[in-house]
Amino acid sequence: MPNTIAAFGEVMMRLETPGLRLLSQTDTLQVSYSGSGVNVLSALSRFGHRALPVTTLPDNPIGDAAEANLRKLGLSTDYIRRDGLYLGMYFLETGFGARPSRVTYSNRPHSSFNTAAEGIYPFAGIAGAVDAVHFCGISLAMNDTVRRNALAFAESVKAAGKTVVFDCNYRPALWGEDGYAIARPWYEKMLHLADIVYMNENDAIHILGLPVSSTERLDQLRELIPAVSKSYNIATIAGTHRHIEQGGQHSLLGYLHTGNVFYFSDPLTFPVYDRIGAGDAYASGILHGILSDFAPEQTVRFASAASMLAHTIVGDTPFSSEPQIFRAMMEGIGDIER
Amino acid sequence: MPNTIAAFGEVMMRLETPGLRLLSQTDTLQVSYSGSGVNVLSALSRFGHRALPVTTLPDNPIGDAAEANLRKLGLSTDYIRRDGLYLGMYFLETGFGARPSRVTYSNRPHSSFNTAAEGIYPFAGIAGAVDAVHFCGISLAMNDTVRRNALAFAESVKAAGKTVVFDCNYRPALWGEDGYAIARPWYEKMLHLADIVYMNENDAIHILGLPVSSTERLDQLRELIPAVSKSYNIATIAGTHRHIEQGGQHSLLGYLHTGNVFYFSDPLTFPVYDRIGAGDAYASGILHGILSDFAPEQTVRFASAASMLAHTIVGDTPFSSEPQIFRAMMEGIGDIER
Amino acid sequence: MPNTIAAFGEVMMRLETPGLRLLSQTDTLQVSYSGSGVNVLSALSRFGHRALPVTTLPDNPIGDAAEANLRKLGLSTDYIRRDGLYLGMYFLETGFGARPSRVTYSNRPHSSFNTAAEGIYPFAGIAGAVDAVHFCGISLAMNDTVRRNALAFAESVKAAGKTVVFDCNYRPALWGEDGYAIARPWYEKMLHLADIVYMNENDAIHILGLPVSSTERLDQLRELIPAVSKSYNIATIAGTHRHIEQGGQHSLLGYLHTGNVFYFSDPLTFPVYDRIGAGDAYASGILHGILSDFAPEQTVRFASAASMLAHTIVGDTPFSSEPQIFRAMMEGIGDIER
Amino acid sequence: MPNTIAAFGEVMMRLETPGLRLLSQTDTLQVSYSGSGVNVLSALSRFGHRALPVTTLPDNPIGDAAEANLRKLGLSTDYIRRDGLYLGMYFLETGFGARPSRVTYSNRPHSSFNTAAEGIYPFAGIAGAVDAVHFCGISLAMNDTVRRNALAFAESVKAAGKTVVFDCNYRPALWGEDGYAIARPWYEKMLHLADIVYMNENDAIHILGLPVSSTERLDQLRELIPAVSKSYNIATIAGTHRHIEQGGQHSLLGYLHTGNVFYFSDPLTFPVYDRIGAGDAYASGILHGILSDFAPEQTVRFASAASMLAHTIVGDTPFSSEPQIFRAMMEGIGDIER
Amino acid sequence: MPNTIAAFGEVMMRLETPGLRLLSQTDTLQVSYSGSGVNVLSALSRFGHRALPVTTLPDNPIGDAAEANLRKLGLSTDYIRRDGLYLGMYFLETGFGARPSRVTYSNRPHSSFNTAAEGIYPFAGIAGAVDAVHFCGISLAMNDTVRRNALAFAESVKAAGKTVVFDCNYRPALWGEDGYAIARPWYEKMLHLADIVYMNENDAIHILGLPVSSTERLDQLRELIPAVSKSYNIATIAGTHRHIEQGGQHSLLGYLHTGNVFYFSDPLTFPVYDRIGAGDAYASGILHGILSDFAPEQTVRFASAASMLAHTIVGDTPFSSEPQIFRAMMEGIGDIER
Amino acid sequence: MPNTIAAFGEVMMRLETPGLRLLSQTDTLQVSYSGSGVNVLSALSRFGHRALPVTTLPDNPIGDAAEANLRKLGLSTDYIRRDGLYLGMYFLETGFGARPSRVTYSNRPHSSFNTAAEGIYPFAGIAGAVDAVHFCGISLAMNDTVRRNALAFAESVKAAGKTVVFDCNYRPALWGEDGYAIARPWYEKMLHLADIVYMNENDAIHILGLPVSSTERLDQLRELIPAVSKSYNIATIAGTHRHIEQGGQHSLLGYLHTGNVFYFSDPLTFPVYDRIGAGDAYASGILHGILSDFAPEQTVRFASAASMLAHTIVGDTPFSSEPQIFRAMMEGIGDIER
Repeated sequence: MPNTIAAFGEVMMRLETPGLRLLSQTDTLQVSYSGSGVNVLSALSRFGHRALPVTTLPDNPIGDAAEANLRKLGLSTDYIRRDGLYLGMYFLETGFGARPSRVTYSNRPHSSFNTAAEGIYPFAGIAGAVDAVHFCGISLAMNDTVRRNALAFAESVKAAGKTVVFDCNYRPALWGEDGYAIARPWYEKMLHLADIVYMNENDAIHILGLPVSSTERLDQLRELIPAVSKSYNIATIAGTHRHIEQGGQHSLLGYLHTGNVFYFSDPLTFPVYDRIGAGDAYASGILHGILSDFAPEQTVRFASAASMLAHTIVGDTPFSSEPQIFRAMMEGIGDIER
Repeated sequence: MPNTIAAFGEVMMRLETPGLRLLSQTDTLQVSYSGSGVNVLSALSRFGHRALPVTTLPDNPIGDAAEANLRKLGLSTDYIRRDGLYLGMYFLETGFGARPSRVTYSNRPHSSFNTAAEGIYPFAGIAGAVDAVHFCGISLAMNDTVRRNALAFAESVKAAGKTVVFDCNYRPALWGEDGYAIARPWYEKMLHLADIVYMNENDAIHILGLPVSSTERLDQLRELIPAVSKSYNIATIAGTHRHIEQGGQHSLLGYLHTGNVFYFSDPLTFPVYDRIGAGDAYASGILHGILSDFAPEQTVRFASAASMLAHTIVGDTPFSSEPQIFRAMMEGIGDIER
Repeated sequence: MPNTIAAFGEVMMRLETPGLRLLSQTDTLQVSYSGSGVNVLSALSRFGHRALPVTTLPDNPIGDAAEANLRKLGLSTDYIRRDGLYLGMYFLETGFGARPSRVTYSNRPHSSFNTAAEGIYPFAGIAGAVDAVHFCGISLAMNDTVRRNALAFAESVKAAGKTVVFDCNYRPALWGEDGYAIARPWYEKMLHLADIVYMNENDAIHILGLPVSSTERLDQLRELIPAVSKSYNIATIAGTHRHIEQGGQHSLLGYLHTGNVFYFSDPLTFPVYDRIGAGDAYASGILHGILSDFAPEQTVRFASAASMLAHTIVGDTPFSSEPQIFRAMMEGIGDIER
Repeated sequence: MPNTIAAFGEVMMRLETPGLRLLSQTDTLQVSYSGSGVNVLSALSRFGHRALPVTTLPDNPIGDAAEANLRKLGLSTDYIRRDGLYLGMYFLETGFGARPSRVTYSNRPHSSFNTAAEGIYPFAGIAGAVDAVHFCGISLAMNDTVRRNALAFAESVKAAGKTVVFDCNYRPALWGEDGYAIARPWYEKMLHLADIVYMNENDAIHILGLPVSSTERLDQLRELIPAVSKSYNIATIAGTHRHIEQGGQHSLLGYLHTGNVFYFSDPLTFPVYDRIGAGDAYASGILHGILSDFAPEQTVRFASAASMLAHTIVGDTPFSSEPQIFRAMMEGIGDIER
Repeated sequence: MPNTIAAFGEVMMRLETPGLRLLSQTDTLQVSYSGSGVNVLSALSRFGHRALPVTTLPDNPIGDAAEANLRKLGLSTDYIRRDGLYLGMYFLETGFGARPSRVTYSNRPHSSFNTAAEGIYPFAGIAGAVDAVHFCGISLAMNDTVRRNALAFAESVKAAGKTVVFDCNYRPALWGEDGYAIARPWYEKMLHLADIVYMNENDAIHILGLPVSSTERLDQLRELIPAVSKSYNIATIAGTHRHIEQGGQHSLLGYLHTGNVFYFSDPLTFPVYDRIGAGDAYASGILHGILSDFAPEQTVRFASAASMLAHTIVGDTPFSSEPQIFRAMMEGIGDIER
Repeated sequence: MPNTIAAFGEVMMRLETPGLRLLSQTDTLQVSYSGSGVNVLSALSRFGHRALPVTTLPDNPIGDAAEANLRKLGLSTDYIRRDGLYLGMYFLETGFGARPSRVTYSNRPHSSFNTAAEGIYPFAGIAGAVDAVHFCGISLAMNDTVRRNALAFAESVKAAGKTVVFDCNYRPALWGEDGYAIARPWYEKMLHLADIVYMNENDAIHILGLPVSSTERLDQLRELIPAVSKSYNIATIAGTHRHIEQGGQHSLLGYLHTGNVFYFSDPLTFPVYDRIGAGDAYASGILHGILSDFAPEQTVRFASAASMLAHTIVGDTPFSSEPQIFRAMMEGIGDIER
C-alpha cells in the first residue's frame, strides 16, 4: 500500500571527477543532482511510494536541469518552487584506499533553497496531503531562515497528525567552531517533534550533551538511545555503526530501537563503489519497513541491506527495488542474472 | 601445429553500461560483439589456430559492424551467411559486490541466426574442411529449427570423422518452466555425437536426470562424470566449480576427465573484472591442450589459468596468448612488464 | 491556459553513433528515448501543457530506463502500460554533406507496443480525461492490432468530443511494396475522424490517390489540400515543404489550411544539427497555436520557427520554450546570451 | 623583445555541455578556466611576453585546479592570492544556427576575487615590476570594492609611468537597470587613466552619453572615437564591428585609432567554432602590435586575424602563435600542414 | 568479378585530438591505423576486391593492434611481416576554418616498415598471386632501402605481367631541400614501370622538370599529361584539382587520361569533415572503374564521387560501397535513409 | 624552508588505454607526460620546493604540449631545452589481478633528450643555482652521450658543493643481455659522486657484484647496504621492499640507512590503483625529509606513506601534499572529507 512522503531539504548539483582523478587532473566532470531528501525520496519511490521534495530550485537552465533529473528519479515536482539564481553544488574527488574522498562545496550559502524566505512554502497544505515528512540535520546547519522554515514545517506536520522523520546528520564542518552548542537548541526542538529519528550515541553525547558511563560504542548506544527516546518521546530511533576495514571494505551494523526494544542487523561487510548517500538508503529502508509493517527485526535487516546495496550504485541516490534488497538479504554475492 | 576449428552459434551485440551504471543512469553504451562460439574461437585464434564461426548475420549495417569486429578478433568470415534483419542483443549492467550483474536480452528470438532455415548451411562441406566444431547448449535453447540445424551439423562432423565439441551451457531462463524435461532429448542426442563435452555434476543431475548418492559437489562429480562418459561414449569431459568469496573474489577449480581418469587444477582465487565469457576461455584451454597434446594435468591447469585471465579482460572475449597463460600458471601476480 | 494532450504511439530507443562515425567505426553508442508522440508531447510539455503518452513499455530494466527518460522529458507516465519484453530500437548513423543519415531498425515488430493486445488500453477513460490525442501514421504501418487499437482510440476521442490530431507520416519502407494501396483504407478511416491533420500534396496523391492537374508542388498543394479538407471534413490541415540546399542547409516552408484559407510562413533557411524529430516540432507548434488561439498566420510562423529550432537540438526531441521560439521568429541568428 | 604584462580580473571556471547539448541533456561537463584577463595574458604569453594575472583564487582544491591550469596556459602565478572559498563559474550551452549560446553564471558575487578586500593587493609593487596592466569593464560591474581596487591599481600603474590598458567590455546583464548611469562615473575614471582603450561607438553613446549625429555605425565610430580620445586623452583606441551572416558565419571589421588616424582591417568572414574570448584575442593582438612597434595598419590586421583564429579554437583562450597569425593574414584557408 | 590487389607501403598509427582541440588542450587521443595503401585497399575491399597490404608491423602489442584493425577494415594479413619495434605515428590536430589541420610525425624513420631489409619480402611470389599492386610516392621519400624494395617489387609485378599502380603523392616536407632533384630519378624509374599513375601538372613540372608554356592549371594539365603518358608509356593517368572555397567548402575536379583522351568529372563542391585520405579514395575509384570495365567517363565520375564521400567519413580510410557512390553520383544531398 | 631541486632525465608521453582495455580493444588513449625526474620534482613541488627539470623536449606541438603539462604540474621550465623532433613515449595497458600491466616503448632511442649532444646543457650554471640534483639510472641505460652528460652534470653538482641524488632504478629490459656488466662502471661512477642513493640489496648483488652470505632479503639488505655506503662514501641510502599479496594488494616496507643506522617504516598494505611512479614518490619523500630535517624515523615513515598514497593517484605523478601524507601516517583509511 503506497504512501505519500515529502522531504524538506536542499537539492545539490554533484560534480564528480571521472576515473578517480583529482580536480587538477581532469577537464570533464560528471553531473548529477542529489541531496539527503532526494536520496531518501528516490529510494522510497523505487519501493512504490509517492515522493515529493519540498524545496526551491533556481529559475534558470540549471534549475530546469535539476528538475528534469528529479523527475527522472521518480520524484514529483508538485512542491518544488522555482526562484532565485543558484543551486548548491559540491565537487567530489572520490578516494581510493588510503586516499579519502574529498568534497568541496560551492555556492551553498547563496542557493535558492538557502535564501528562500520564511513562510514562503505552503507547509500546512503539504502536511495535510502527505503521510510523512523527512527532515535532515544538514538543513539546520544552513542559516536561521532555513532552520525556522524547517521547524515551522515540522510543526505543521505534527499538527496534521502526520509522521515527522528526522535524520540528525550532524556535519561538523558546516556548524564550525562551537558547533554543538549552536546546534543543540535546534536539534532539541526537532527531536521533540519527531516520531522517527536517525542518530547514534555520538549525537547523543555531542549534540545533546548527554553524560555516558560506558566506553564501548555499542554499550554507549544501549545506554543512551533509550534515554533519548524517553526524554524526547520518540517512538523509533535507528542508525548504524560503520567500520572501515584494512583493505578498504566497509562493515555496517544497523540498529533499530522501537517499543523500547533494540533490534540489530547482522554485521555486513562489503566493498564500496560509491559511499555517499548510503546513510540515506538506510533511512529509507527503516521508513519503508515501518510504513509497510515489517517486523522490526526484518526492518533493520532490510535497511542494512538497502544501505549495503547503495554502496554499489554510482551516485548518491539509491536505486534498488524491494525484491533486489530481499534477495541481497537472503543470498550471498550473486553471479550474473540472465 | 595449428588446427582449423569451426563453431556453430549465434553472434550477439553486447551493449554495456559504462562505469557500473544502471541503464537508467547512462546515455552511452559500450558495444562489442560476442557469443559463446565467438569467444572460444577468438581464444583459439590467439593460440594460433584457424577459427571460423558458422552463423548468420543480418544483411545491414549492424551485420557489417558485427562482421568487421569478428575479423578484428581474428576470425575468418568464410562460413558467415548474411541474411535477415536482426542481430541478437544483450544489455549488460555489470554488478559490484552484493549487486549482481544483470543481463537483459533483446531481439534474440527474431535474430538472423535464430530464424535461419533448416538446411541452409553447407554443413557437410564445412565438416570436411575443419578439424573440430564447437557447439553450445545455448543454441539448443532457441527453437526447433536451430536445434535441428545443430544436430545436422554435428552429424556431418561425426560422419566426416572430425571432433564434435559440446558445451552443455544450460541456461534456465532460456528454457523456461519444465526446461530440463524439454531439453533432455536434445542434449542426449548431442552427447551421443560428442567427443569433448563441457559439463558438471549439476548438468548430469538436472538435464540428464541421473540419480546421485553423494551430497558434496565434488563427490557428485566423481560419481556422475564417469557414468556420463560411459553412457554416451564421450572421450573427454571437462568443467569447473566456481565459488564466490565474501568480498567478491572468485575461486575456480577446473577438472578434466579423460581416459577414465580425473585431473584437477589447483584451486585459483582471483579478483574479477569481467566475468562473462570466462567459461568459454576454459573450454578453449581444454580444447587447445587436447589439440596440442599437452599432458592432461597440464591441460587442466592451462584451461584454468586461461579462464582466470579471461576474468581480467574487458568484454566477453578472451585475449590471452599461450605464453601469457603459461606465465600465469607459473608465477604469482605480476608487477609491471616493461 | 494549459491543456491536457495524449499521444498514442511507440516509444523507441535511439542508439546513435558518436562523432558522425559509422556503426563499424564505433564501440560506443549514445542512447535516448523518443518516438513521434514522445517528441510532440515533449514539445507541448515545454509550452506548459500536460502531456501523456499512451503506450506500452517492456517490463524490464530497458522499460525502466525508457520510463525514467520520459519522465525527464516532462511526460506523465499515467497511461503507460508495462508489459512484454522488447522496446523498439533504431540505430542512427548521422550523415554529413553528401552522405545521408542512415537508420537501421531493430526489434520493432516484436516490441511491447506492437504486440499489445487489442482492447487492452482504457481508451474511453483516457478520452474523457484529455483535450486532444495525437496519432501518427507510423503506428498504422505496424500491424492490424496496432491499427485497430489506433482506430478504436480515435473513435473514443471523437465520441468524447475531444480533438483528434493525425500526422500522416507515411514511411514507404515500413509499408513495403503496394504500400499505398494497403495503407489507403486505414488512412481514410483516420482522416474521417481527424480534426487536425499533418500532410502535404504527396500524401493526397499517393495515399489517397487523388488526381492532380498542376505540376508544381505548391500548386498541387493549393489544389489538393482544400479537396481533402472537404472530402474528409477536416477543420485544419498543415504541413511543410522542405528543400535541401547545395552545401547542406535546409530550407522550410510551413503551411496551414484552416477555415478554407491557406497561411504560409516565410521560407526559413538554416544549418542542420539533428534533423530527426523536426517534423514533430512543427506539429507541436501548430497544435499549440490552435490550443492557444494564436492567429493562423502567427501559428504557422510559430510552428516553422519551432521546427527550425528543433534542427539545432541534439536528439529527436524538441526542447524550445515558447519565448525562445518567439525570439527566433523575430530576430536573426543570436550571438551569446549572458 | 618580450614585455611583462599583468591583468587585473576574475578567473572563472567554464563548465560547458559537450556536443551542443543542453544542460538538461547531459551528465558530463567540460571544464576549463578562463576570464578576460586570462585570455589576453594567455595570448600574450604565446607571443613571447611574460604574463601575470593579478587576482584571488580560493584556497581549496578548486583553486589548486585553477592555478594549475593557469600555469599550463603559460601564466605566472606570482601575483595570484589564494584566499576565500569560491571560484566564479559559468555554465555554457553552446548554440547552433538559430539557437544562441546560453551562459548561466553561478557563484560569481561571492567569489574569492569579488570578495577580496580593498588594499589587499600590493599594487604599487606590481606596477613597478611590469610594463603594462590590462583592466576589464567586467570587473567594474562587480561591486564597489572591486571597482575601488581596480581604480587604485590603475592609479599605481599610471604613477609608475607604465601603460594602462582598459577594455570597456560593458555587459548589460551585470549592471542591471539604469546600468549605464551607474557605470558612467567608474568608466570615466578608468578612461582618464587609460593609455590604450577597447571600445566602439555604442560605448561612447550609451556609457559616456555622447551625442551623435550620424546613423550608420561606421560613421558614428568616425565621429565619436576621436572625440573620446581627445576628451580623455587616450593615445590609442581600438575595437571591432561584428556582423552575423545568414547561415551563421561571422564577419569582423577591426579598427585602430592612434595618432588621430583611423586604421581598418579588411573585413574578415569566417565560420565560428567557439566565439567566446575572441574579443580578448583582438585586444591581445592590438597590444602586441603596439608593444612590438608594428605599423598601425599591420597592428589592426594582426589583431583581426588573431581574433578570427580565436574563433576556431576550443575554449575561451586564444592559442595562436605570431607566425600562425601572420600566415592567416597572408593566405586563404589552409589545407593540411604536414 | 572481384580482383586481388596488393599495396606496398607503411601502416601508421593516427593519433587525433578529439573535438578539434590542440595537443596542449587534450588528455585523450583517438587512435586509428591507416596509410596510403591501407586507404586504397580498404576502399577496394568495400567494392568487393581482395585486398592485401605488403608491409612490416612491429612484433609487439602495437603491431597486434594495428594488425587487428587492418583485419577489421577487411584487409588480408597474408603478406604482413611482423618484425622490429616501432610503428610510424602521426598526431593530427584537425583544423577549422582559417586554422589549418596540423600533422606532427613521430617515429617514422625508425618504423618496422622503414627499417625492413632489402629483399626480405617475397615479391615475386606476391606478384604472381595478385592482379595489381599499388605503390605510393610517400614510400619513396623514406630511405634508399625502402626505395629499392619498392622498385624491386614493381619490377616483379611488371615481370609477372600484372598491373603497376603508382600514386606520385610527392610530400615536400619528407624530401626536404632540393627534394625534387633527389626524388626525380626514383620517380622516373617508377613511372617507366607503371600502368596507372596518379599525378597532376605540378608533379610533371616539379618532379619531372618538364617545361610548360601555359599558365592556367587546366591548360598545363592538358599540355603535360599526354607528354608524360607518352614519355613513360603510361596507359592511364588520373588526378584531381582541389580548390578551397571561402567558408571552407572544398571543390574537386577529377580527370582521367586514357587512350590519349581526357575525361573530366563535373566539379563537385561539398563541406569537409575529414580531408585526410580523400586522395586515396579517388585513386581507389579510378582503379575500381578500370578493373570493372566502367566507361572512362563513368570511372572519373565514380572516382570523384568516391573522393567526395571520403571527406564525410571519420578517419583516413574510405568506407563507401559501390551503390552508395552511385547514389551520390545521381542524387543531390540525401535526407534520412530509413 | 623551500629548496631548489633540479632533475636530469627524460620526459615521456604516457599513452594509456582506458578502462583496463588492451591496445587492440581501444580507439582512445589517455595522454599524460611524466618521467622519473618529473615525478620526483612534481612531488617536491607539492611540498613547496622549487622544482626544475633539466631536459630536452622536441621543438614541435608535442613538445609544446609536454611543456604546458610540466608547468601544470608545478615545474619550472627554465632549464628545459627545445630541440629535435621526438618525445619518448610509452603505451601502458594497465593490468588487473593475474594480468600484469604491460608497457610498450616507442621512439625512445631517438627522442630529443636521448639525442641531445654532449655538453649542450649549462650544467655548471645550473649546479650553482640549485640545492640538489636528482639523477636516475634509467638515463644511464640510454646511450653513451646521455651517460656522459649525466656524469658531467653530477660532477658539476659535486664541484659546486650541492647534493647529488641518485636513484639506481635498474631496468633489465633497457640494458639487455650482459646488462649488469655493462652498467656497472657507470653506476660505480655515479655512486662515488652521490650523497643520497636509492637502491636495495638486489642492486648491490647484481649491479655492483657484491658477494652476500645471507639468503633472506632483509638480512641481505642489512649486510650489503652498510658495505655500499662505506665503499662509495654515501651518506644516505634508502629503498623499499615490495610484496604483492594474493588478491592483488601490495605491501611495502621502506628503509633508510643514514649515519650508519637503519630505520624502517611499518609495513604498509594497501590496494593499488596506479602503481607506476610510486617509487619516485618514495624517493621524493626521503629527499623532502632530509631537506626538512625530519628525524630519520619520521623520514622513512613519511616516504613510505607518500609512496602508498601515490598508488592511489591516477598517472605516474604523485599529487599528495605534506599534510595529506601526515594524515595517512597517523590514521587508518579515511571516509569522506567534507
